[in-house]
Amino acid sequence: MPVSIPKVQTAAVVPKAGAALEIRTDHPVKQPDELAPGECLVKLDVSGVCHTDLHAAKGDWPVPPRVPLIGGHEGVGHIVAIGRNTIDSPVKIGDRVGIKWLADSCLMCEQCRKGLEQCCSKAKLSGYTVDGTFAQYVVSYTAHVTPIPDGIDSAEAASILCAGVTTYRAIKYSNTNAGDWIVLPGAGGGLGHLAVQYAVNRGLRVVAIDTGADKKQLVEQLGAEVWIDFKESKDIVADIKAATDGLGAHAAVVTTASSTGYEQAIDYLRAGGTLVAVGLPGTATLNASIFFTVFKGLQIVGSYVGNRQDAVEAMDIAAQGKVKCHFATKPLSALKDVYEGLEAGKIAGRIVLQM
Amino acid sequence: MPVSIPKVQTAAVVPKAGAALEIRTDHPVKQPDELAPGECLVKLDVSGVCHTDLHAAKGDWPVPPRVPLIGGHEGVGHIVAIGRNTIDSPVKIGDRVGIKWLADSCLMCEQCRKGLEQCCSKAKLSGYTVDGTFAQYVVSYTAHVTPIPDGIDSAEAASILCAGVTTYRAIKYSNTNAGDWIVLPGAGGGLGHLAVQYAVNRGLRVVAIDTGADKKQLVEQLGAEVWIDFKESKDIVADIKAATDGLGAHAAVVTTASSTGYEQAIDYLRAGGTLVAVGLPGTATLNASIFFTVFKGLQIVGSYVGNRQDAVEAMDIAAQGKVKCHFATKPLSALKDVYEGLEAGKIAGRIVLQM
Amino acid sequence: MPVSIPKVQTAAVVPKAGAALEIRTDHPVKQPDELAPGECLVKLDVSGVCHTDLHAAKGDWPVPPRVPLIGGHEGVGHIVAIGRNTIDSPVKIGDRVGIKWLADSCLMCEQCRKGLEQCCSKAKLSGYTVDGTFAQYVVSYTAHVTPIPDGIDSAEAASILCAGVTTYRAIKYSNTNAGDWIVLPGAGGGLGHLAVQYAVNRGLRVVAIDTGADKKQLVEQLGAEVWIDFKESKDIVADIKAATDGLGAHAAVVTTASSTGYEQAIDYLRAGGTLVAVGLPGTATLNASIFFTVFKGLQIVGSYVGNRQDAVEAMDIAAQGKVKCHFATKPLSALKDVYEGLEAGKIAGRIVLQM
Amino acid sequence: MPVSIPKVQTAAVVPKAGAALEIRTDHPVKQPDELAPGECLVKLDVSGVCHTDLHAAKGDWPVPPRVPLIGGHEGVGHIVAIGRNTIDSPVKIGDRVGIKWLADSCLMCEQCRKGLEQCCSKAKLSGYTVDGTFAQYVVSYTAHVTPIPDGIDSAEAASILCAGVTTYRAIKYSNTNAGDWIVLPGAGGGLGHLAVQYAVNRGLRVVAIDTGADKKQLVEQLGAEVWIDFKESKDIVADIKAATDGLGAHAAVVTTASSTGYEQAIDYLRAGGTLVAVGLPGTATLNASIFFTVFKGLQIVGSYVGNRQDAVEAMDIAAQGKVKCHFATKPLSALKDVYEGLEAGKIAGRIVLQM
Repeated sequence: MPVSIPKVQTAAVVPKAGAALEIRTDHPVKQPDELAPGECLVKLDVSGVCHTDLHAAKGDWPVPPRVPLIGGHEGVGHIVAIGRNTIDSPVKIGDRVGIKWLADSCLMCEQCRKGLEQCCSKAKLSGYTVDGTFAQYVVSYTAHVTPIPDGIDSAEAASILCAGVTTYRAIKYSNTNAGDWIVLPGAGGGLGHLAVQYAVNRGLRVVAIDTGADKKQLVEQLGAEVWIDFKESKDIVADIKAATDGLGAHAAVVTTASSTGYEQAIDYLRAGGTLVAVGLPGTATLNASIFFTVFKGLQIVGSYVGNRQDAVEAMDIAAQGKVKCHFATKPLSALKDVYEGLEAGKIAGRIVLQM
Repeated sequence: MPVSIPKVQTAAVVPKAGAALEIRTDHPVKQPDELAPGECLVKLDVSGVCHTDLHAAKGDWPVPPRVPLIGGHEGVGHIVAIGRNTIDSPVKIGDRVGIKWLADSCLMCEQCRKGLEQCCSKAKLSGYTVDGTFAQYVVSYTAHVTPIPDGIDSAEAASILCAGVTTYRAIKYSNTNAGDWIVLPGAGGGLGHLAVQYAVNRGLRVVAIDTGADKKQLVEQLGAEVWIDFKESKDIVADIKAATDGLGAHAAVVTTASSTGYEQAIDYLRAGGTLVAVGLPGTATLNASIFFTVFKGLQIVGSYVGNRQDAVEAMDIAAQGKVKCHFATKPLSALKDVYEGLEAGKIAGRIVLQM
Repeated sequence: MPVSIPKVQTAAVVPKAGAALEIRTDHPVKQPDELAPGECLVKLDVSGVCHTDLHAAKGDWPVPPRVPLIGGHEGVGHIVAIGRNTIDSPVKIGDRVGIKWLADSCLMCEQCRKGLEQCCSKAKLSGYTVDGTFAQYVVSYTAHVTPIPDGIDSAEAASILCAGVTTYRAIKYSNTNAGDWIVLPGAGGGLGHLAVQYAVNRGLRVVAIDTGADKKQLVEQLGAEVWIDFKESKDIVADIKAATDGLGAHAAVVTTASSTGYEQAIDYLRAGGTLVAVGLPGTATLNASIFFTVFKGLQIVGSYVGNRQDAVEAMDIAAQGKVKCHFATKPLSALKDVYEGLEAGKIAGRIVLQM
Repeated sequence: MPVSIPKVQTAAVVPKAGAALEIRTDHPVKQPDELAPGECLVKLDVSGVCHTDLHAAKGDWPVPPRVPLIGGHEGVGHIVAIGRNTIDSPVKIGDRVGIKWLADSCLMCEQCRKGLEQCCSKAKLSGYTVDGTFAQYVVSYTAHVTPIPDGIDSAEAASILCAGVTTYRAIKYSNTNAGDWIVLPGAGGGLGHLAVQYAVNRGLRVVAIDTGADKKQLVEQLGAEVWIDFKESKDIVADIKAATDGLGAHAAVVTTASSTGYEQAIDYLRAGGTLVAVGLPGTATLNASIFFTVFKGLQIVGSYVGNRQDAVEAMDIAAQGKVKCHFATKPLSALKDVYEGLEAGKIAGRIVLQM
């Protein structure tokens, strides 16, 4: 059943660093016979929008994006072609797959051999160093696309590919055990509300920090046991300790870009606790007290998206219905508005674009 | 065989925070019938001097010492009395034992039950919250004194009790495997030269950083493979990467008090690497880049002295002759001079006082 | 508020190995001033009955019980006295506490220092090497009694102390991650139905093996996803593989006394999987294929009850209502009948005796 | 610099299961333009001979070898061709590489993604399911060949590829820490003498079990602290316990094919200890006492050769001169005699064939 592949497509292109996004309708589509071994062409149904896309568009990270660039790294669609001479492909034409931030890695270097594929020096990053998913078609890589199980909608699956995987892995490596307390600042946000669910799914007890009645209601529905409104609390550290046997929490997953969230965690973690750092601010530093990091025997773990196995695990849990993303859908043409909303902090949950 | 216990002894007393040390010859000795259950009286042969003792004497840490105070937490001597109604004592009168920084912990709380005895909220700290080993006699605790095996001299054993345990545990929790590269800034110093040996003993490859021909010779004799003189190197990060396959080191154990050593480690560690923080500066912060901590998937592990098992393990390895401390002996009366030397950075290796 | 302690009590005594149980009403109660340091006297409300008690009564294990003996190791009651000169007691008179199989350990030896308290060579075992909880009063040990949190009934708490702790620890050390498949043979039994709940609580997917419509209904209510009736299945291994992606399960917790359950697990586990052995048969051996244990990279983990921390964790999860024991209550005088029922395999769930 | 590839070569061929080995001089060589993507052609210098080759030749394992077959899986040579359309090759023409038992795996399945490449269901096994290294040329796979560092001779490197990797990984996963006691039955043999060195290199204390003055001298030179001659010892378990603080060893790596070695280890391991099973007997079972496996909290770990990273690590340690293989070289034509010698247990150390 040969699929007809058009020559051009609609895509959202950043022509150069810091320039305004352009929605183009004549962007070329790489044709099946142009695909290199290991490449596949995916016809996209949807793509989530992530805060990281803003960094790509603005070019404010220490590691520069390529330009011109199509952003996006939470895409779901179907494989319509696979490069000739591709070996050991775990997917085939017609499969529904996801494209995540880590588009490809070499699978050969020390980092890949140890499972730290996201730290491969040859890593290709969707919507950052290679074109991403804000388009109708994307070239991706058979080794790294994530198979989407039945029983989950494409729009549901989209945000799992980045926000889901990132929070899933962060919690997986938080050195926690069922019954432990975990603090989730920003619990009502795009990453946070998924983190709450992944945490609850493994028996962790969640202290949710955020603000506003809507977010309170959301995180409590999702299973958070303790709610702290950071605008109302007079002493967040004291409130957390009071809620966690007086000793403090066993872990925290901090996704914010500012240093404050990290400094504070050193204070409210119990001795032996773990702070998982997930945020990728351009320049902020981890102003943690060395004295108390040592004296309390704390661990600070940098967790950067996830590898292929993390993606499969995060997706399977979502496909079982144990984690659900709260999102709104918009057309691709709304992307500029979405960026403005993200920058202003006005977006609740995640946005998923329909292609 | 009853031992005669004198009523008074010679001891080095800090009368109040920041005050000058006084060598007193009439300091009272707690008598056997005054010992509480769980306490033991140890007649000291020797006591090492540690940089921490300076913090105790000066009172410049966020957690204040008690005063008046006898400092010292690297003591070796023999048990001459055990408190009546002591149960389950693993030691008996006549045993040679060591007194380490962690004099006692409750063994009952969550931290103790999990083996993080040094973070027990009831921990007693030798020479800090209880009187230490700069004296002829010290009251200690049967549960926490470290049995000294045959085949190691008391003066040899002394520095293992703090400098040894601290570096031993730091390396044990550095997430390294035989064959990995570990960077040891200050490798020629009191802690550093022990760290080199504990690292080599577990098959790690050592990059030693320090300065001067003497220290270079020392660390190379102890098995360090790469030497970097920080006064001569134009780019320490580049030098470390060049020596470690271009990827950077797998781990670093940073004992310094300034922030610089921590910032630098973020740069020279390979992706997935571990920075073990050991130093206890009063106020410095860990100015690590959040972006690179996350992007490189690094771990920062606070390691604070060690628990009872760490002490037994560090001591056993030393008793087998695999780790040897370089030290000079002095009389107790020289303690003031030693403090001045430490403060000026003029002491090579460790100093052990004879009682 | 002095509590009046009677001189005698009702207790179920095994006078010698293999002899019939005697319910005595004049068994002496150790008086408060007779308690050694570290001992406490507990007035019992309830005591669960465990299959192990049968081994104690029959004396058919390689390690012999002491006689005469009062059995029982799932007791809940209140502390009415603590031995004079007890130090660092984490409990006080009036506290509600549980008595588990591991009544006491030295907390000083290598095993205890490493948290493997149940393997302490000086371990005291309730109802096996020291008198247990089939009585109105029991002498126990302040270091090892388990505080019972508010919000859980004493009769509910009883079975958590052995069946709960044992299955909790087995699952904790099963090398599994949320989303993994775990097989629980005997899932509808006393241990099994608790294992199902502890597994579900940490996000594991449960394959329950047992027989009968009642047990099927029970385990499905508790969250098991797959049910296999071992009397109806023609090929248990094939059925498990079919239910678990064709690869087999990630882990199994085997509590049975016969070798068959262990051999079978080697076949239905996926490569890299873990078999946790929990049963304590007198003489059976682990007839696992060496070839396939190696070829599939399996791990076989012996898990023996739990330490103090395991007990606290298992109890806390139950006290939050996440794990509930199915039990029937009986008077102490019914103990003989209960033993006969256990031997005949006729007891569903757990039996809790009222004192 | 094109290399001339002959059409035929000398190879040792097993024509069918159980048949006698034939040395053929006209065996075809797969030509460069016939190589599939991912394949490479290696011109061999040497090949070690392993006990496993006997199983392949005899076909007595539960998993059958393919026939006709060229055996051998410890080959070292240079890459002379790489299949067209090979992507991400970590090696290039001219590189010196090793061919190990695990010739290839898919790198895509769950087992591969988790680093358990040797358990990939699509694994290709050198000299078992694909032709091996008892020939002048072998077809292998760019993803899995092991780069051989400078500073190690090809003949030295050969045995590291199987005997070395296998023992290296077994020790790596033995749950041991520097200073722990490890028992190595067969310490003077082909695998054993490498195990002694890998153990000593990570600071383990070795109890070597074997027989004869030559082997005693060898293992003591290599750093074993305790020697037990199994023909002279009256009670091996008692001897091991006496040598290891009375508590038993922390770990054992058992490479033998009979059940006895496994049963015995259960007795001489200390509580909490680990038995690593490495041997691949056709039918023997692990007749370990279930009671004591549970009661002592033991772990039994099946360890099957190693993945790519294990091979790199084992080879690097050897290339640094920390592990040296004791071997004798023979011509390929001597292979039949070597097999007879292996079967009779007459081969000391390893045999390496020159091609």
